Amino acid sequence: MLERFLVPDQDRVYVQHDDMHAATKAIFNKMGLSESNSQTSADALMTSDLRGCESHGVSNMLRRYVGWYNTGEMNPTPNVRVTRESDTTANLDGDEGLGLHVLPIATEMAIEKARKHGTGTVVVHNSRHIGMLAYHAMMPMREDMIGWCVTAGNPLNAVPTFGAEPRFATNPWAWAIPADKEPPFVFDVATTQVAGNKLALADRIGAPMEPGWITGMDGSPVMEENTKLPPKGEYLMLPFGGTREQGSHKGYGFAAIADVLGNILSGMPAGFLLPPQPQMLNHFIQAINIDALTDVGKFKSDMDDSLRGLRETKPAPGHDRVVYAGLPEHEETEVRLRDGIPYHREVVEWFESIRDELGLDYELR
Amino acid sequence: MLERFLVPDQDRVYVQHDDMHAATKAIFNKMGLSESNSQTSADALMTSDLRGCESHGVSNMLRRYVGWYNTGEMNPTPNVRVTRESDTTANLDGDEGLGLHVLPIATEMAIEKARKHGTGTVVVHNSRHIGMLAYHAMMPMREDMIGWCVTAGNPLNAVPTFGAEPRFATNPWAWAIPADKEPPFVFDVATTQVAGNKLALADRIGAPMEPGWITGMDGSPVMEENTKLPPKGEYLMLPFGGTREQGSHKGYGFAAIADVLGNILSGMPAGFLLPPQPQMLNHFIQAINIDALTDVGKFKSDMDDSLRGLRETKPAPGHDRVVYAGLPEHEETEVRLRDGIPYHREVVEWFESIRDELGLDYELR
Repeated sequence: MLERFLVPDQDRVYVQHDDMHAATKAIFNKMGLSESNSQTSADALMTSDLRGCESHGVSNMLRRYVGWYNTGEMNPTPNVRVTRESDTTANLDGDEGLGLHVLPIATEMAIEKARKHGTGTVVVHNSRHIGMLAYHAMMPMREDMIGWCVTAGNPLNAVPTFGAEPRFATNPWAWAIPADKEPPFVFDVATTQVAGNKLALADRIGAPMEPGWITGMDGSPVMEENTKLPPKGEYLMLPFGGTREQGSHKGYGFAAIADVLGNILSGMPAGFLLPPQPQMLNHFIQAINIDALTDVGKFKSDMDDSLRGLRETKPAPGHDRVVYAGLPEHEETEVRLRDGIPYHREVVEWFESIRDELGLDYELR
Repeated sequence: MLERFLVPDQDRVYVQHDDMHAATKAIFNKMGLSESNSQTSADALMTSDLRGCESHGVSNMLRRYVGWYNTGEMNPTPNVRVTRESDTTANLDGDEGLGLHVLPIATEMAIEKARKHGTGTVVVHNSRHIGMLAYHAMMPMREDMIGWCVTAGNPLNAVPTFGAEPRFATNPWAWAIPADKEPPFVFDVATTQVAGNKLALADRIGAPMEPGWITGMDGSPVMEENTKLPPKGEYLMLPFGGTREQGSHKGYGFAAIADVLGNILSGMPAGFLLPPQPQMLNHFIQAINIDALTDVGKFKSDMDDSLRGLRETKPAPGHDRVVYAGLPEHEETEVRLRDGIPYHREVVEWFESIRDELGLDYELR
């Protein structure tokens, strides 16, 4: 993440991974999720926090999940079932369940199909938030497969290029590709200039915007330097690229593809034609068995050479080094497993207050 | 394409599609390609010119193809063969053949596998330039399938974010998704800020650069307005996004994925580890059978609603309308089939000179 999204020093409270995992799992369990679904959901959120991607960890979303369970907008005990299937594909009804634990069911099916037939492709409709998309894309790697996924749905916040009305959610893409000795390539990006949860983070810590990140409500890109995020409901988001000259049609196109793969291919209408409430996300995941296309040993060794070459690229003036997607996150995971995870004190306070409210008994500090 | 890439009025020579197709096919035929491969190769280039994407049509590349046939760097009669295969996947040796007609062999295999098993994924190693990538991605649409592909290899011209050395070719992605009554969604983008062939076009017509399109040879982004393209060898290209603040790590990531799918998954090393000569491109194509995941009629009707909704989005101030990928190209095709294709006079002059050199007898004006 950009430096500006880090929690400021004076607001940091360090919490050990295992403590926060236990607290998160206890909350999910209290919401009515099974032991196993609570475990998977906590794993997904904590993987995000360990990787330094706190925008998609417990800080922003867990309180919203609790809210949705409380209002009945999310089903704590979904009956996930297959609505269409072929040798290599399946379509699942997520039964209004949290994507954190629903999408892994689809991913396991995709992996199994890829093991038998070379590739596996599974879509999920009628599901909910999936946390950090990379968590899901990374699952096929343990079987020497490439994993990739997208998710799409609502809420709408992103305009198409030249548009003045929102047509897409942040519709992210994630890819995970294994190597041998090098940390794997793990790529996870919103198709907007900045992920929605990163804007929420920026708002909490008062970080400034860059030109071309958002538009006014008439669709005009905000091109001033160092502006603060306007209040919710007074801005829209630009596709990645920002302006047309800087390639926003590329972000728009990748957003539109995610909309098709997640929503339309799973049997739903386009994201902007879904009812606005409850918030729905529909998913697409694919596992590609490397062995079906080339020698796995050679592939992983070539990946090592590629990733090493990328990180050893001579840096441009003003930069220490070149990284590749997944490398800083891998390094951050090692640091945070050792030193604890730096949360904003406001997040830890929320955990303490919900603990008392729900009658749980974890300690975070 | 951006307005600035259009051929200026005073330099335009209009040529009818059928005339230019016949000339192009005759040249391929003279290079030693079979009747059928000449036809496919001419189709691919002319589809690009009809769609208003002259950067990837006959203007820039045909003379280079002729050069490569003349020096023996490209094989006019490749023996394309399967080197690995599963139910849903295959790996082909392109035998140094032009991707324009080699990749369609892979695509037909992917379509056939998708018809039987739900999806088909085929990689091709040891091939050459593929022209406009969308031509290939569009093939599965005729069978109610989604098509997508990437290509990667050399020459290297793009830096990774913060890098001072080129690590990627323009490594493009293309996606084609059918609708019912609306023109299909067809997306085709370089993972650099601007396609290499568009820079060549801009150079020919003297169009200015935008900030964040290229770097100096030390990797520093050129951020001045309205600069002219430096001579070849004196600049490098930025991933889409341009600067890190504007999301160049997204362009870098998509470039790296294309490098893996095209090069490493097809059994080759990373693009920057390939020998620099001859220019090699390796490809990945996938066909997804819509029927394997959802009802085809519903899908196409939902696509119509989605695409109509996108083009009817209220435009931002200063813009006439919102388009989606493939819509302007569809409209341009109708205009150009009727009025002819506007080539730069220098291109038509090249066709006339090569005609005389090769002893051919077409007329273009």
